[in-house]
Amino acid sequence: MGIGNIFKAFQPKDKVFFVLFEKTADTLVQMSKEFHEGLIDFDTNDESLLKKMSDFEHQLDDLTHEVFVQLGENFITPFDREDINHLAAGLDDIADYIFASSKYIFLYKTPEVKEFTELSLLIHKSCVELQSAIKNLNGFKNAAEVKESCIKINSYENIADDVLSQALVRLFETNDPINIIKVKDVLEYMEIVTDKAEDVANTIENILIKYA
Amino acid sequence: MGIGNIFKAFQPKDKVFFVLFEKTADTLVQMSKEFHEGLIDFDTNDESLLKKMSDFEHQLDDLTHEVFVQLGENFITPFDREDINHLAAGLDDIADYIFASSKYIFLYKTPEVKEFTELSLLIHKSCVELQSAIKNLNGFKNAAEVKESCIKINSYENIADDVLSQALVRLFETNDPINIIKVKDVLEYMEIVTDKAEDVANTIENILIKYA
Amino acid sequence: MGIGNIFKAFQPKDKVFFVLFEKTADTLVQMSKEFHEGLIDFDTNDESLLKKMSDFEHQLDDLTHEVFVQLGENFITPFDREDINHLAAGLDDIADYIFASSKYIFLYKTPEVKEFTELSLLIHKSCVELQSAIKNLNGFKNAAEVKESCIKINSYENIADDVLSQALVRLFETNDPINIIKVKDVLEYMEIVTDKAEDVANTIENILIKYA
Repeated sequence: MGIGNIFKAFQPKDKVFFVLFEKTADTLVQMSKEFHEGLIDFDTNDESLLKKMSDFEHQLDDLTHEVFVQLGENFITPFDREDINHLAAGLDDIADYIFASSKYIFLYKTPEVKEFTELSLLIHKSCVELQSAIKNLNGFKNAAEVKESCIKINSYENIADDVLSQALVRLFETNDPINIIKVKDVLEYMEIVTDKAEDVANTIENILIKYA
Repeated sequence: MGIGNIFKAFQPKDKVFFVLFEKTADTLVQMSKEFHEGLIDFDTNDESLLKKMSDFEHQLDDLTHEVFVQLGENFITPFDREDINHLAAGLDDIADYIFASSKYIFLYKTPEVKEFTELSLLIHKSCVELQSAIKNLNGFKNAAEVKESCIKINSYENIADDVLSQALVRLFETNDPINIIKVKDVLEYMEIVTDKAEDVANTIENILIKYA
Repeated sequence: MGIGNIFKAFQPKDKVFFVLFEKTADTLVQMSKEFHEGLIDFDTNDESLLKKMSDFEHQLDDLTHEVFVQLGENFITPFDREDINHLAAGLDDIADYIFASSKYIFLYKTPEVKEFTELSLLIHKSCVELQSAIKNLNGFKNAAEVKESCIKINSYENIADDVLSQALVRLFETNDPINIIKVKDVLEYMEIVTDKAEDVANTIENILIKYA
């Protein structure tokens, strides 16, 4: 047994949750990056973006399920079981709504509006901050950095809200009800992603308040 | 005092929750059966289906309320109070969204589409599996059967998702915006029922992981 | 040190939660009053109502945040931490949906329908009952009054549901799809406020069941 393995044998059992949450956040960063880049060069007839989003969504489902399995097996957790539950469910919601956004774009053959890439960029930036917040939450040592990331996520949600509002005003000016129904659905799904990111940021802040 | 009563006197207090959850699941099976059968022979002018759904929804409200009353009175529960809470609220959500689906069909005098009965059948099948999962959860003895029911509920949700997608594609082809708004609302409420059933299945799986 | 201060020094630390919840309820009563009165004399070009709603929403955000900060700092709470969490989040949801309702009225330049003021009155009445329920919850002495308020809030939600239904029937008669999309969104946001008030009433009832 090498030194690495000795350390591993003594590694606290509750580390598994941080490993899983970091892997989840890494995957969300990748997913949102591909989503944003896919929307920049966008072609409703090329369904490879939809296929990628579907694959990411399945990966994230598996990671979420693993958190619940570990919750069932571990008596010791790094923070409240309820908080682990909220965090896992919240991260999964982000993946679900990114996938839903991409699904409806292809299903409706939604005409592109410039706000799609504005929102997907805000989504990606939120995921990057979540990744950073979760890394810094590990060990509860970098409370200030965690807080800063949460503040940024909140501000991205506010900006997304304004982008949605302006997009809706422009959309209704088209006076085309079917177009309005389609684009409005996609815009709203995308804005929900930033709401879900804010929910996760709030969960992280609550964990920080309790343990840091 | 007969032997039956002696056993009853020693029956664990926490059995009341299984009795209530089984009664709730039985009622959901009946409700979803009547909903599905009502939609096969469907007439928007005959509001007897709506009346039946409203009655079932009230029954299920009362059962949910009784769970919360019992939670307040019992110190001993068969599993975590939070899980009982989630399970009761989740089952109530299923009833609420079946009722909402039927309400909007009558309110909007929604033109029938073939996907209504496809979705109502998936809803009914999900409720049958929930009934089975809850019966098998009692005593935590039939973990494999519980798991199998949960997997089926997850697969029904996936199928419902595809049915909704195909229905929406066909719906937008009508090019009739008011028709689209009405039918889309009903289809979405029906699909949410299968989401809520999946949420309950996840809650049941989490309970199983902890106790079985 | 006067007698008042002596008492204050011995005042249980957990009083802070009742103080915060009462302040939150007071603010919701004011917010809903201004919302209702603003809709009676309504002019989509005068955005002062929207500005007021936005200010109230920020105040309520701050109060909710303070509850979470106190939850992190206090080991002793007057009731379960999860219930405090639900109560705070539920009250915040009410403010969010009142704000969303007002936002979409202005954003869409939504044509007024008579049901707007009917719903805003039900919203205001629900907030008044929440204020009363929360005051009477303090000390768990007036259980009967708390229960009565919760029953009233449930009945307002039922009435709001009927108002929405009738409004939608009338709305579809206009046969104007863009008008339908706009007004339907606002009506639905307003009805959600009464749902959220009912959720809070249910949380309060559950607290009462456990502690009274």
